[in-house]
Amino acid sequence: MIVITGTVRIPVGTLDRVRPAMRAMVDASRAEMGCLHYAYGEDVLEPGLIWVSESWRDQAALDAHATSAHMKTWRGAGAELGLHDRNLTLYQVASSKAL
Amino acid sequence: MIVITGTVRIPVGTLDRVRPAMRAMVDASRAEMGCLHYAYGEDVLEPGLIWVSESWRDQAALDAHATSAHMKTWRGAGAELGLHDRNLTLYQVASSKAL
Repeated sequence: MIVITGTVRIPVGTLDRVRPAMRAMVDASRAEMGCLHYAYGEDVLEPGLIWVSESWRDQAALDAHATSAHMKTWRGAGAELGLHDRNLTLYQVASSKAL
Repeated sequence: MIVITGTVRIPVGTLDRVRPAMRAMVDASRAEMGCLHYAYGEDVLEPGLIWVSESWRDQAALDAHATSAHMKTWRGAGAELGLHDRNLTLYQVASSKAL
């Protein structure tokens, strides 16, 4: 199992403008085989800072995601919408439990 | 290394009211020994759904966090502010890399 967390930035105050493309990408990602969860959240203290939270069954699922048509569309939209400072970390999970 | 992700819910539309207590707790948590990152973000598609993202050096650091005075204060404030549906997962990390 793989967990991904980290951040991207959007221009402050543009979330309403970014949201439609973000929604299309998030919905399509959640529907992918091997996607356990996938979400974006705007930092409660720092507008424009978007927290990414994903988990995937395995590397094959993540590879399929990375090369999917909807991620290509999203990357194009993101560039037009001013997404920047992508800063993500991938964690290989040894074990997990409810907290 | 430990990663925690998951969600809590606040009553929809109350983030401005919740933010001061949340800010105090997040700031104090980030200042703790062994806290690698600590953030809350409101889901970009689902208002009131708060994504939690944390990482800790080890279990001892997390234990100290869980029993800290600021977390006790936060739990009290959260109950008054209507926080509910806490749903967090703890991941023991085998390895990590920038994505």
